[in-house]
Amino acid sequence: MASAEILSVGTELLLGQIIDTDAPTMARILAECGINCQRRTTIGDNFQRLQSAIEEALTRSDIVITIGGLGPTGDDLTRDAIAAALGDSLLESEEARQQLIQFFQSRGIEMVESNLRQAQRPESAQFVPNPNGTAPGLICEKHGKVVIALPGPPGEFNPMASGPVRDYLSTLYEKGSDRAGQSIIHSRTLRLIGIGESSAEARIKHLMDSQNPTLAPYAKVGEVHIRLSAKAESIEEANRIIQPVEQEVRKLLGPAVYGVDEETLAYAVVQLLLKRGQTVATSESITGGKIGEALTSVPGSSGAYVGGFVVYNPSAKRDLLGIEQDLIDQYGPVSKSVAMAMAANCRIKLNTDFAIAATGNAGPTADVDGKPVGLVYIGIADQSGVRVFEHQFRGIREDIRARVVQSALAAMRELLL
Amino acid sequence: MASAEILSVGTELLLGQIIDTDAPTMARILAECGINCQRRTTIGDNFQRLQSAIEEALTRSDIVITIGGLGPTGDDLTRDAIAAALGDSLLESEEARQQLIQFFQSRGIEMVESNLRQAQRPESAQFVPNPNGTAPGLICEKHGKVVIALPGPPGEFNPMASGPVRDYLSTLYEKGSDRAGQSIIHSRTLRLIGIGESSAEARIKHLMDSQNPTLAPYAKVGEVHIRLSAKAESIEEANRIIQPVEQEVRKLLGPAVYGVDEETLAYAVVQLLLKRGQTVATSESITGGKIGEALTSVPGSSGAYVGGFVVYNPSAKRDLLGIEQDLIDQYGPVSKSVAMAMAANCRIKLNTDFAIAATGNAGPTADVDGKPVGLVYIGIADQSGVRVFEHQFRGIREDIRARVVQSALAAMRELLL
Repeated sequence: MASAEILSVGTELLLGQIIDTDAPTMARILAECGINCQRRTTIGDNFQRLQSAIEEALTRSDIVITIGGLGPTGDDLTRDAIAAALGDSLLESEEARQQLIQFFQSRGIEMVESNLRQAQRPESAQFVPNPNGTAPGLICEKHGKVVIALPGPPGEFNPMASGPVRDYLSTLYEKGSDRAGQSIIHSRTLRLIGIGESSAEARIKHLMDSQNPTLAPYAKVGEVHIRLSAKAESIEEANRIIQPVEQEVRKLLGPAVYGVDEETLAYAVVQLLLKRGQTVATSESITGGKIGEALTSVPGSSGAYVGGFVVYNPSAKRDLLGIEQDLIDQYGPVSKSVAMAMAANCRIKLNTDFAIAATGNAGPTADVDGKPVGLVYIGIADQSGVRVFEHQFRGIREDIRARVVQSALAAMRELLL
Repeated sequence: MASAEILSVGTELLLGQIIDTDAPTMARILAECGINCQRRTTIGDNFQRLQSAIEEALTRSDIVITIGGLGPTGDDLTRDAIAAALGDSLLESEEARQQLIQFFQSRGIEMVESNLRQAQRPESAQFVPNPNGTAPGLICEKHGKVVIALPGPPGEFNPMASGPVRDYLSTLYEKGSDRAGQSIIHSRTLRLIGIGESSAEARIKHLMDSQNPTLAPYAKVGEVHIRLSAKAESIEEANRIIQPVEQEVRKLLGPAVYGVDEETLAYAVVQLLLKRGQTVATSESITGGKIGEALTSVPGSSGAYVGGFVVYNPSAKRDLLGIEQDLIDQYGPVSKSVAMAMAANCRIKLNTDFAIAATGNAGPTADVDGKPVGLVYIGIADQSGVRVFEHQFRGIREDIRARVVQSALAAMRELLL
């Protein structure tokens, strides 16, 4: 089994000023390509340390993948460090130079001289095109080893890693005999709502000792994930190993399982609505548009989600939704009555089957009318009336708002089931 | 300045099945204690590789901090690997043993034999109490080096790292003469909009060689950050070092600098509106509520942001904003004309000083009326009329939507300046 190491480059990453999500993605892709990731390292923007780290990794592993440090500025040193570690000189590619010039022209942005560094590659490198930015990736093959360089911004990294680089890695060892007996790790994640991590684990306890697939529960914001990971010779075989265990887990957990892998709760709600040919609208105060944003993050959601209101200020609740000022004055904007009116009036104004409303206090200070931080009312309207759910959430402003979105979508899903 | 490395331990981390948030936290704590974090490494649950990684790190750095692998199960190997790397044997502590037994008794959980491994420590180690779990931390001092072991679960890691371990690290070099001349690193980030990374760097080029503070530019989604990092004996002194350079950068970059540190573009817009006593509303199609969400993520935004409309489906543009069906049919929902009407009608309906509108195609497929993925129209209405901005963004659905929010807020800010 071929071995690999991942090298994340950047002082910001090293000092913890940003969280590295690229390296975990790359590690998952390696596992799916049957390549054994044995170490990940983070190094700052320091030429000497970067070169040493690449050299060390090459003594241990067949493949070294760097992420970051391909930008146009003086502290972007990955290209130079790879060239130094491989004993290559840097060449400027006329084709890459023209592409860069075009990239800037098409966007009407001025190109400065330093941008041309991105048209350089180590002698043994091929470029990997970057349709989402100016830094092409690099694949260098030398002395039986492979060094791959990917850009750090996730919008550029993700398409390149899961596209051309994944394709390259998955075919790399087909040529030789190394491929024989090689195994991959493939995972499938079941997403759960309305059940805690330990309760979920207790219900599937007898499956937790399984060796292939292995099962692991993870607590997430407002939900729980159970990952099933199989070792096999192909993704198809892994899926065959996972399938009966997944069925057993689903039988034990019932409707708590709302989706798999990258399917969000908003995705589950949109699919249920599309299947039933029904529509929903939103009426948001505390979340300021976050529920609408979650629903519209699902491609094809326009068939199920019509639109809605952001009624952040009490005046907007009155002006847009026609909620009586008296009602707001009597109960306060954070109240069961206002949540009910928000949901009912929204549904009528947009002529939808359902409407979701959310009002509450996200903090940091108590409400004008004394409602505590974290108090939330969620209303779900359908033709028969409005259901209201009261919650008291904890955490900082953004945590509370994220919990409101999850709870509102969970309530909507429950009604649809 | 003392140097440190962080070693994250766990196959799940290594394979990217969970995201490492502990190591970035630890890196920030080190910087605040004046310790230079020069490398972070992630290793799986493999005794040999773990021992080697600890030994290597000790050759390079004064302090090695491991996170994870202190649990009770067979794949928790950090204690043993540290002992092996330091040439220590493992001792069982009677006190720790009693504490473990009590921990389980007080929770009514059965203790299995393997739990007693957590009462073991390398000879040169002291325990760090863990009030939130069964794995105590370890601090080993030997041959002038320090190895610290922390548990991985964030609920146990965070209190231990920011409590006793931080206290230990911050006083570590006070005892001896090493403390003399010890320095901390303190950073301040300037946030820029409307200028590219390389253009920004070109304008402040003569400052880029500065050694204290150092300057580093970073490209973010739709914006650029410039971090100024000073080495000093205190945060106050660091701020005094940063201040004149910050002023110089601000002079060179002018209004491109919209905020510092954690201040978002939405924060800048809200502050400008509050200062002028003016209000804004939103009318969102492509972003589905994301602009409203950004504005309401700012505490105190209710004084400036009134609310708005999510008009995702064309029918909502008609029903909620009173946009003529003829106009939508003639130009399509993704058009300059519809963006203008969305902004103008929204402003009138909510009686605000400004309104922000966004319509476009976020993909993944071309629009019904053939508008390409990434084509976006942003409208900003004020009393004098509506300005419309056309953009062609690239990337996946979520990237495009994030760019729209940034561009809309940037246009709003520009109008306010």
